[in-house]
Amino acid sequence: MNALRHTISLLSLSSFQLGRRMRSQHFRGFLLGTGLGLSTFATVTYAQAEAAKVNRKLNTSKFMAEPITDANTLLEDADENMRHRMELMIMEIQAEFCRALESEEFSGQKFKVDRWMRKEGGGGVTCVLQDGDVFEKAGVNVSVVTGSLPPAAVQQMRARGKALTENVKLPFFASGVSAVIHPRNPHVPTIHFNYRYFEVQLPDGSKQWWFGGGTDLTPYYLDEADARHFHKTLKAACDEHDVSYYPKFKKWCDDYFHIKHRNESRGIGGIFFDDIDEPSQQEAFNFVKSCAKAVTPSYLPLVQKHKNAAYGDKERQWQLLRRGRYVEFNLIYDRGTKFGLYTPGARYESILMSLPLHARWEYMHEPQAKSKENALLQVLQNPKEWV
Amino acid sequence: MNALRHTISLLSLSSFQLGRRMRSQHFRGFLLGTGLGLSTFATVTYAQAEAAKVNRKLNTSKFMAEPITDANTLLEDADENMRHRMELMIMEIQAEFCRALESEEFSGQKFKVDRWMRKEGGGGVTCVLQDGDVFEKAGVNVSVVTGSLPPAAVQQMRARGKALTENVKLPFFASGVSAVIHPRNPHVPTIHFNYRYFEVQLPDGSKQWWFGGGTDLTPYYLDEADARHFHKTLKAACDEHDVSYYPKFKKWCDDYFHIKHRNESRGIGGIFFDDIDEPSQQEAFNFVKSCAKAVTPSYLPLVQKHKNAAYGDKERQWQLLRRGRYVEFNLIYDRGTKFGLYTPGARYESILMSLPLHARWEYMHEPQAKSKENALLQVLQNPKEWV
Repeated sequence: MNALRHTISLLSLSSFQLGRRMRSQHFRGFLLGTGLGLSTFATVTYAQAEAAKVNRKLNTSKFMAEPITDANTLLEDADENMRHRMELMIMEIQAEFCRALESEEFSGQKFKVDRWMRKEGGGGVTCVLQDGDVFEKAGVNVSVVTGSLPPAAVQQMRARGKALTENVKLPFFASGVSAVIHPRNPHVPTIHFNYRYFEVQLPDGSKQWWFGGGTDLTPYYLDEADARHFHKTLKAACDEHDVSYYPKFKKWCDDYFHIKHRNESRGIGGIFFDDIDEPSQQEAFNFVKSCAKAVTPSYLPLVQKHKNAAYGDKERQWQLLRRGRYVEFNLIYDRGTKFGLYTPGARYESILMSLPLHARWEYMHEPQAKSKENALLQVLQNPKEWV
Repeated sequence: MNALRHTISLLSLSSFQLGRRMRSQHFRGFLLGTGLGLSTFATVTYAQAEAAKVNRKLNTSKFMAEPITDANTLLEDADENMRHRMELMIMEIQAEFCRALESEEFSGQKFKVDRWMRKEGGGGVTCVLQDGDVFEKAGVNVSVVTGSLPPAAVQQMRARGKALTENVKLPFFASGVSAVIHPRNPHVPTIHFNYRYFEVQLPDGSKQWWFGGGTDLTPYYLDEADARHFHKTLKAACDEHDVSYYPKFKKWCDDYFHIKHRNESRGIGGIFFDDIDEPSQQEAFNFVKSCAKAVTPSYLPLVQKHKNAAYGDKERQWQLLRRGRYVEFNLIYDRGTKFGLYTPGARYESILMSLPLHARWEYMHEPQAKSKENALLQVLQNPKEWV
């Protein structure tokens, strides 16, 4: 994978993520950031928008907060405008997942919801449940942002060998939902997912769009039935669209979530993909939606199965050590996190909510040869096929 | 400061660090990595070496472990060979500092000592005291390594605009002592220091050498008398050599240990410098040695003053949050750490021993306006002059 792909594409809880697509494609009526396009568009689709208003009413109360885009605008043209279709989808996924997690708490703990706007354009909805009985720290973030590619990103693009005038800023649009859930019980795995949609306008007026995403699991103790259930659920979502997807994206996930200096994986993988713009925009969206919809069924059963499991200090300390590895991956290798943090104006609280409430680093820790801790480590050092 | 300086120079506990010096300088009899130079050298200095042997006997038992270079070789030519003079100095500093810390422990806890060799050349001595009564995690590392600059480092050099043939490997030598001490009591600050010496041989046969280093303090609660004592001690060490040093290196320290995404400093600073090759090699060494010798007197009194101070869970939680920031700085910004981790064959345990035993991340944490926690934060957001 090239550096650029890594750098830009991984909206792992990042407030905004920028485009790196170079294959040219014509700019079809989207006028990014100019304000001119929307009124034209509204005229064209007025009749349809009116019909839509009659047939369905956007119930924003089911979301964690009001969407970033005005609800009427979303309603008007979600059928024609992928930005808006995506925004509705990610708002829905966020709410579904947050409600599902809340329902697992013992004492009715709820997500804290922060809706924020970004002065450069767009905003997001950050939901965090911290210090719950079941979830020690759970963050689910939606962001829908527009702006211009900063020079650093342009530099990255240049590194890929394409001739872009330095210092030219490229209008972009980025939206996505992402989450990291750190449960309290060491027998419940951590899950991460992220589904995102990008548009970038090139200097020649052409526009790029693509989707990316993934879901992956980080257990502290290996439960093979869990691993199989998790991977099977993701595979089923992939197979609906293309049977070549799961094997390809499973491998991509293993390759990406790799802590190089330790030569071990962050977890037991899942799926990870980027650069999806086939077979059509609608088909690509449908695929991403299937994956996003698979998150709750892939994970909730594992929470329910293990949240009451007994554990002691030994298991807790091991969980904290593994969370230290999680921090290492996110801060050292996750390009989305780093890119987000380096970008001026980034909402770092939304980016860093992926970090666990607690983490631990021991010098030269090594689990005993026949321990359950070592059994996990073996799998992290040698990723395997689960379905 | 340019990217290259940042990238290469910050041997913050890194097992090896490579050169970035470009100003050319003639290669004066040092034959790096060839094995040819040493015998010639030994002949020239034989009489002196013999005299040295009579007058003084290298007592390696005062070190934490045997030096990386053979003790007799060190003894023979330390007066003429800066590599060896530096190695003796850093072994001595390591032992002095470790013994001083051990003497503060309540139950006689001792450093665990790992002497390691690196297959690419050289090695190190890593000392860690973990889970002590006074020190939750204390790491003091010496490394003395040789090798070739990997292509990534060459690339970094190229970024500075100098014409170096790509893929040419440059022989280097790097040695240094570095430490991060995380005490248990939140009223005792964390200290970090690092003193290092580099040599790089350029393709034209010329050789670069330079020193770098620094000492900085990260309190959890601000004690102004501590801050003054700490800075005063460092200033005195600098002033012995050049009164312009302290103000310059104090500012450099504030600039470097800055957590950009949070717009706050990691701590209350100290001194930080790089690229020291004046007024002479011996003078530069003497300056670095003065700084290294100032570490224990700058810090030990603070440990003694606060190690028995009362504290509760509130103070502990704040300390853990601040340690989260420490982890953020080290993994996101510290180029030495990142460069080390990206370098194949790095001893990551020696690099990551700088991380605290425990750290904490809370979403949107903000100390109360008139709290002691906030008083610290104000100083971290607005670095001040202490002497």
